[in-house]
Amino acid sequence: MRAEILSVGTELLLGATLNTNARHLSQRLAGISIDVFRQVTIGDNPARLRRAFAEAAGRADLIVTTGGLGPTEDDVTMAAFAAFAGVPLREDRRTRAHITSQLDRRGKSMTPLIRRQCLVPAGSTLFQNPVGTAPAVLHTVRRRGRTVRILLLPGPPREMRPLLERILPRLRRLIPVAQRSVFLTRSVRITGPTEAEVASHVPDLLKLPPPLTVGIYAKPGEVELRIMCKSPDRASALKQLAGLERVIRERLGASVYGIDHESLPDVVGDLLRRGRLTIAVAESCTGGLISKLLTDTPGSSAYFMGGLVSYDDRIKRRLLGVPSRTLRDHGAVSRSTALAMASRALKLFGTDLAVAVTGVAGPAGGSALKPVGSVWIALTDGAWTDCRAYRFTGDRGDVRERAAHKALDLVRVRLSALQALRGTSRR
Amino acid sequence: MRAEILSVGTELLLGATLNTNARHLSQRLAGISIDVFRQVTIGDNPARLRRAFAEAAGRADLIVTTGGLGPTEDDVTMAAFAAFAGVPLREDRRTRAHITSQLDRRGKSMTPLIRRQCLVPAGSTLFQNPVGTAPAVLHTVRRRGRTVRILLLPGPPREMRPLLERILPRLRRLIPVAQRSVFLTRSVRITGPTEAEVASHVPDLLKLPPPLTVGIYAKPGEVELRIMCKSPDRASALKQLAGLERVIRERLGASVYGIDHESLPDVVGDLLRRGRLTIAVAESCTGGLISKLLTDTPGSSAYFMGGLVSYDDRIKRRLLGVPSRTLRDHGAVSRSTALAMASRALKLFGTDLAVAVTGVAGPAGGSALKPVGSVWIALTDGAWTDCRAYRFTGDRGDVRERAAHKALDLVRVRLSALQALRGTSRR
Repeated sequence: MRAEILSVGTELLLGATLNTNARHLSQRLAGISIDVFRQVTIGDNPARLRRAFAEAAGRADLIVTTGGLGPTEDDVTMAAFAAFAGVPLREDRRTRAHITSQLDRRGKSMTPLIRRQCLVPAGSTLFQNPVGTAPAVLHTVRRRGRTVRILLLPGPPREMRPLLERILPRLRRLIPVAQRSVFLTRSVRITGPTEAEVASHVPDLLKLPPPLTVGIYAKPGEVELRIMCKSPDRASALKQLAGLERVIRERLGASVYGIDHESLPDVVGDLLRRGRLTIAVAESCTGGLISKLLTDTPGSSAYFMGGLVSYDDRIKRRLLGVPSRTLRDHGAVSRSTALAMASRALKLFGTDLAVAVTGVAGPAGGSALKPVGSVWIALTDGAWTDCRAYRFTGDRGDVRERAAHKALDLVRVRLSALQALRGTSRR
Repeated sequence: MRAEILSVGTELLLGATLNTNARHLSQRLAGISIDVFRQVTIGDNPARLRRAFAEAAGRADLIVTTGGLGPTEDDVTMAAFAAFAGVPLREDRRTRAHITSQLDRRGKSMTPLIRRQCLVPAGSTLFQNPVGTAPAVLHTVRRRGRTVRILLLPGPPREMRPLLERILPRLRRLIPVAQRSVFLTRSVRITGPTEAEVASHVPDLLKLPPPLTVGIYAKPGEVELRIMCKSPDRASALKQLAGLERVIRERLGASVYGIDHESLPDVVGDLLRRGRLTIAVAESCTGGLISKLLTDTPGSSAYFMGGLVSYDDRIKRRLLGVPSRTLRDHGAVSRSTALAMASRALKLFGTDLAVAVTGVAGPAGGSALKPVGSVWIALTDGAWTDCRAYRFTGDRGDVRERAAHKALDLVRVRLSALQALRGTSRR
């Protein structure tokens, strides 16, 4: 099954929007072994769009479009598709009911513009949009004796992605059983070593013969090893991925922190939950980012009690009890300040663990002794304490992100060590 | 001058790599008023690539490719182009000298694979790569009586971008002087109304005749109206953009919060700074996000004193002084709790203004009366207080993002009103 992706939107051709949809679609289609042979981007122009449909239908068995299904006049994908397929647009009663209920939930009412979104090509299979108004449309046309499927998806990623997940099983069923193969990937997520250091531990794995492939990718604050396996059966692919993951874990030890979409805050949350421990955060330069990351995880209220952002020295003194002398003699970016912040947060929030971060995020505020990127991170449980200095590179955003990531990683390493010590015993 | 971008690379079709090159090229070409009509992505396949060249040459005056110029066997762009253009590949002496010196600098020596990169289509103009080995190639072909320029660029963004900057002036000179024009854009950023509501205020503007064009884009928590103007001279384009911006501001009033890259936290920060006011935040469901957003802005320590994340009811009681009775009778997600949080934050941090947010971010924790997405936002300066209930849609991340955005917007609207009242007077 050969697929082609058609991204619609003048904003893409102007470079105003980055086309993340094409990548996401390619990944998800590859996952059910539908090969994408071409990605095309066209503006919101009915004639050019219609021509693009005709060209793609001459090459592909499946055309997936994103964008141009919105309520405004420059959303022309539906009309261009109907013109290409030679089918009329009709108002769909169920779509109208769904859109009305979506609007109701937001206390809005139907407008003539939004009503345009109820017009769909006759004979289509529709998938209602759980987070927006435009439905997804699946349609079949015949071209030169071939069957071509066309899937129209809305452009906003948060609408497109859940709709795609619902439709993928249906697309998979279109592939003849004998040709169905699985393409599985697994990401091993690593913090600590650089990309080159990780590569030096796995030079052989980066050159494996098919069906296994390993790719290495550097991301802010972490390195990812992506293992890929294409196989006629799922069980064999899973076994091969698991074997390779084991080898990577053996080589890289504790710097492997998670798999696939497991984020560092998820992993930390899991360790806290299993240890029945609570945590609090005192932040200066990260300005709330660590609390934000910890609470991205649903259910984090089980272990995250709260945080204090002390962005001003007066607040560090008044609310976090950092002594004036400490601030005067050592400054806000110092071991003593970080330690005082962590131990006060532990008491204020009454938690088992507290982490504190203070540093110079930049672009201003740096000095010869404490340049931009200087960060102190302290971790304490009352009895045991760890406090370290870091020098992060990059701009303000990078420094904040790296400091927050490192703080969470220190918590992870500490909790992992505690868990290993305790074995199966529980408090 | 009509351009088409041809991105080459199987990794793009697998979704392993995000195509940032196409966006960058589109932006830079638009800047010299070369219109990109189509972006196409093709794998590392000589036959398909050659066909893609032929198709593009039938439509465009300029084809810009990225990728497939590397030293390995699967880099086939140069050979596919030569086959399409009907010209032989020849080893270029100057390219060979440049590559040798590049290798020398890294202590490497020429290999047969790297030597392939010295083979270029006869009759091309070459641009040596300042940070890599593959040169950029500019070539002219005649197709059906038309002149078509083809520019081949390497794929790694850090090599492609500096080469492009060097070549852009040359591309601009290809445009006849009478047709050279500037293309300026301006984004008017709007919070509050939905995309459809914004559209209903500016239906005429969305259908303006050239040289002005207005596009409408929905983004999380905001709507963007992008004004574009193509004009032979810069002064006239700027004047037209300014005129249109004025009309949009008149129609949409206070819901216009910023222009171009101005973010809501930047605008709020600017208003606080100009009013010499300070702010504190008390957060529950947003978990630190509002503090994080406010401190994204460099220099925010001038007005942001700090924040408290009270993720547990005990913390709301203990640190924010929310009475046990309030929590028992009204719950943590209530007007009384939001008000108590805001007024305590104002005192704790000693600020001029405090904003508090409490709500149900989900996915769990919702009820019939307080479903997921229910959020209370309170704003106070001690004397004056505003507290409102919202119902945000979407997943946990969306609800948090929208609540934070709305809280910042309430601060913005309040500060704008204060500023308007005060006129030019200052505290």
